[in-house]
Amino acid sequence: TEETTTGVIRLESMLADGALAYPVIAVNEADTKHMFDNRYGTGQSTVDGLIRATNFLVAGKRAVVAGYGWCGKGLASRLHGLGANLIVTEIDPTRALEAVMDGYLVMPMSEAAKVADLIITVTGDLNVIDGRHFEVMKDGVIVANSGHFNDEINIPALEQMSDSRRTLRDFVEEFVVDGRKIYLLAEGRLLNLSAAEGHPAAVMDMSFANQALSVEYLQRNRDGLTVKVYVVPEDIDKEIASLKLASMGIEIDTLTPEQERYLKSWQTGT
Amino acid sequence: TEETTTGVIRLESMLADGALAYPVIAVNEADTKHMFDNRYGTGQSTVDGLIRATNFLVAGKRAVVAGYGWCGKGLASRLHGLGANLIVTEIDPTRALEAVMDGYLVMPMSEAAKVADLIITVTGDLNVIDGRHFEVMKDGVIVANSGHFNDEINIPALEQMSDSRRTLRDFVEEFVVDGRKIYLLAEGRLLNLSAAEGHPAAVMDMSFANQALSVEYLQRNRDGLTVKVYVVPEDIDKEIASLKLASMGIEIDTLTPEQERYLKSWQTGT
Amino acid sequence: TEETTTGVIRLESMLADGALAYPVIAVNEADTKHMFDNRYGTGQSTVDGLIRATNFLVAGKRAVVAGYGWCGKGLASRLHGLGANLIVTEIDPTRALEAVMDGYLVMPMSEAAKVADLIITVTGDLNVIDGRHFEVMKDGVIVANSGHFNDEINIPALEQMSDSRRTLRDFVEEFVVDGRKIYLLAEGRLLNLSAAEGHPAAVMDMSFANQALSVEYLQRNRDGLTVKVYVVPEDIDKEIASLKLASMGIEIDTLTPEQERYLKSWQTGT
Amino acid sequence: TEETTTGVIRLESMLADGALAYPVIAVNEADTKHMFDNRYGTGQSTVDGLIRATNFLVAGKRAVVAGYGWCGKGLASRLHGLGANLIVTEIDPTRALEAVMDGYLVMPMSEAAKVADLIITVTGDLNVIDGRHFEVMKDGVIVANSGHFNDEINIPALEQMSDSRRTLRDFVEEFVVDGRKIYLLAEGRLLNLSAAEGHPAAVMDMSFANQALSVEYLQRNRDGLTVKVYVVPEDIDKEIASLKLASMGIEIDTLTPEQERYLKSWQTGT
Repeated sequence: TEETTTGVIRLESMLADGALAYPVIAVNEADTKHMFDNRYGTGQSTVDGLIRATNFLVAGKRAVVAGYGWCGKGLASRLHGLGANLIVTEIDPTRALEAVMDGYLVMPMSEAAKVADLIITVTGDLNVIDGRHFEVMKDGVIVANSGHFNDEINIPALEQMSDSRRTLRDFVEEFVVDGRKIYLLAEGRLLNLSAAEGHPAAVMDMSFANQALSVEYLQRNRDGLTVKVYVVPEDIDKEIASLKLASMGIEIDTLTPEQERYLKSWQTGT
Repeated sequence: TEETTTGVIRLESMLADGALAYPVIAVNEADTKHMFDNRYGTGQSTVDGLIRATNFLVAGKRAVVAGYGWCGKGLASRLHGLGANLIVTEIDPTRALEAVMDGYLVMPMSEAAKVADLIITVTGDLNVIDGRHFEVMKDGVIVANSGHFNDEINIPALEQMSDSRRTLRDFVEEFVVDGRKIYLLAEGRLLNLSAAEGHPAAVMDMSFANQALSVEYLQRNRDGLTVKVYVVPEDIDKEIASLKLASMGIEIDTLTPEQERYLKSWQTGT
Repeated sequence: TEETTTGVIRLESMLADGALAYPVIAVNEADTKHMFDNRYGTGQSTVDGLIRATNFLVAGKRAVVAGYGWCGKGLASRLHGLGANLIVTEIDPTRALEAVMDGYLVMPMSEAAKVADLIITVTGDLNVIDGRHFEVMKDGVIVANSGHFNDEINIPALEQMSDSRRTLRDFVEEFVVDGRKIYLLAEGRLLNLSAAEGHPAAVMDMSFANQALSVEYLQRNRDGLTVKVYVVPEDIDKEIASLKLASMGIEIDTLTPEQERYLKSWQTGT
Repeated sequence: TEETTTGVIRLESMLADGALAYPVIAVNEADTKHMFDNRYGTGQSTVDGLIRATNFLVAGKRAVVAGYGWCGKGLASRLHGLGANLIVTEIDPTRALEAVMDGYLVMPMSEAAKVADLIITVTGDLNVIDGRHFEVMKDGVIVANSGHFNDEINIPALEQMSDSRRTLRDFVEEFVVDGRKIYLLAEGRLLNLSAAEGHPAAVMDMSFANQALSVEYLQRNRDGLTVKVYVVPEDIDKEIASLKLASMGIEIDTLTPEQERYLKSWQTGT
């Protein structure tokens, strides 16, 4: 089983190259995984890491979120909920449009970098903040990553451009570029894991349940599965959501027999 | 091509019954359709219909949204944005959990009906507001539908339970049940189409573009398609999003060659 | 008694000029008036007027609110709640800072006018949108007023600059300036009164209660009052809030005797 | 000078008792102080303290905020922004009504305590969470204070009712009452000061500027001031807001001479 968005992209590449050796269930693709862990977990734990590292007041700041996938949506929502003014950067037009319709400004990173007080990357891609972006940043900007690896920020480029570099407090390094201070958090590693405690247990329980039930499923069905990347069976996904609701003491409606018949029919109601 | 969520459910039923006669593209499944039309379009036009019909102050009211699909998410977001306190009812545990995590209360309709000032159905299902719910509603409650047909509210049951019925103003009927007044809007028909002007042009342009480009695609590829319900090809979907962004004067990032290589590779970065 | 923010400013000017002839209670200054009528009432009814006049999709648009008093706060909150990206203009630094901390962009009108899809004035002042602002607006911008008089937009300047002018639909006039279309709503008169039904009854009841109880108070205390602008007595204000809560079926806490003693004391707890 | 809301209440009591010995400026009453420090500062730093102490996922939880003054408004807004479902308790009907209109549920603490996952007091009052409230709380509830002193939670009552008490991690104590676990944070002391780093520097700078400029004002005007509680002169307040905006690189509009004349006049525009 595989847990992360970036990991799933890798598995798909391995499959394309014939390098995948056994069937895999992409747990990240489960609704109960990506909606809750990636969106709500990463969102809260990243702002937690940010505030712990810097004691930065979020309200009133211009915050740039690079990437509007589940993690980016969650992070944007939490920064907005703490009073930041949000800018989203994207390479996918549909996601970019969704960010616009959600009320955020969307622009290329080369423009966003000029006005940002804070930039956090959650793209799973390489050098999303690159040398040319550091060149136009304001004095005092904070730069961090909450994506997958420490590849999203081009730190070697920053090092090369800087006149000085020093550690101000845990997880906060100050680089001086042409007299402007740029603060890099957690060496560009995942801010939520480095500077905070990672995801709350209340989120990870659903991810681990997906892992456990998926491994059991792979075991039980091993003869019928071919070498490919599977999604989590919908039944497992819904079962986990039901258990979670029950643990929170929340009840929901169930279909009446009349409603089940109605949904299956295409002859009534037209 | 087919435009609506409920329509797609019907087509799938027809296919299961062998009643589908030719290939169909489910335009509703396009991201640019369901995210923008169902979510943002239905949300705004439904609150528009509500306010036009009633001149009701939304702020401070307890509003129940039945169904947390795209339409329900959009409607909940808009009512919340106008200051209502939201309750969501659902039959799907994953969606119910998403509503909880979005900060809304979730409960069965039988509980929600007791405290609601306003109930709007967007489920595509039958008798979501039924006789047993009318029995427990507060005096002065407003009931409406913005789903598909006027099946979602059991109006015959309401008629039978009522001691009196009169039209107060356009689109507002008052039923008196055991001395409690229940206001039904637009005879349970789609509130946004009945009492307002339907979706804004800015939303429908994307839906129509999906329709047009999908029909062209069906025509161009008719020999290679079998009788089933197709989704809109991803290229068409992204093309529409790009055109929309351009028309709004919004630019986004594009992948550098280095980034494209990175995303296709599974050997670096681990 | 006097009902509006702008009216109170006038009364204070009259008092300074010796032109005030009798004691007046500024009902607008009551918490239950300005918080609920100006903020929630004007906010909702203005977006209602906007949508009725134009069937404009608010989500994804850049909306400028001129003025961040109670009306401006309410309007900004509602436009934001419908998915707009907000810019606030102000002349008062404290209010400007509050808008910033609430997550909105703040800039001079000369900058805001360049990027706006929609501009609404709620300042009570003159020519807040002036000739030099029309010169830099984008093609297709919508301009409206929800302040006091039709003085906030310099319509004579717009008329003089325009090559053509025509009415597109009720409350929507199109002016063409250097090939750019500018849409003026409701001739610059109050958008919520012109194009919608004004404030919901649920808001105005509190304003009228303030009016009625204040007139009664003036009558009862006429011998002890001098010629000046009075605020609504706090008792009346709280009484109205209590009645409103009771009508909504909402209960609140009351101080225990122990808590009353504690609040009056400065000797314990330090 | 005096910095806090509760401190100002004390000073007023001292004045009423003739115990105030010299003129005092209530810095807390400055707009730049109470709006920014109490609202934005307390809000963020309290959720920061909460998350550090517990690693609790805020999204989807029912959170009760006792008190809807500036601190309560800020805290409610931040908890809501992190995805909680909010309940507000109040003793003041106007504030209670404002909370309702802001979209929150309002109810007495005796009701709120039954459904809460989290209760935080910010009232400045005594025993706001009392023995009778502990009796009805759910298993697993978190209880904390971010008001003034550790008087807001009746800890002696909790101690007496409990069968056991132990420290789980820093700032988290578990009490067991009739088999239900109640978690008390930071011994009921200010959560933001105890478990986090207090207010961000970006907020406190405005408070300290108010303190410094007010002390200078007292000194300069000492002969003309009597023994009472003064507010911060409006000029100082606006000066601080202007300096803060300038430090953030934000420009605002200024009145034109024509606009100044208009605001002073009551003869035009009617």
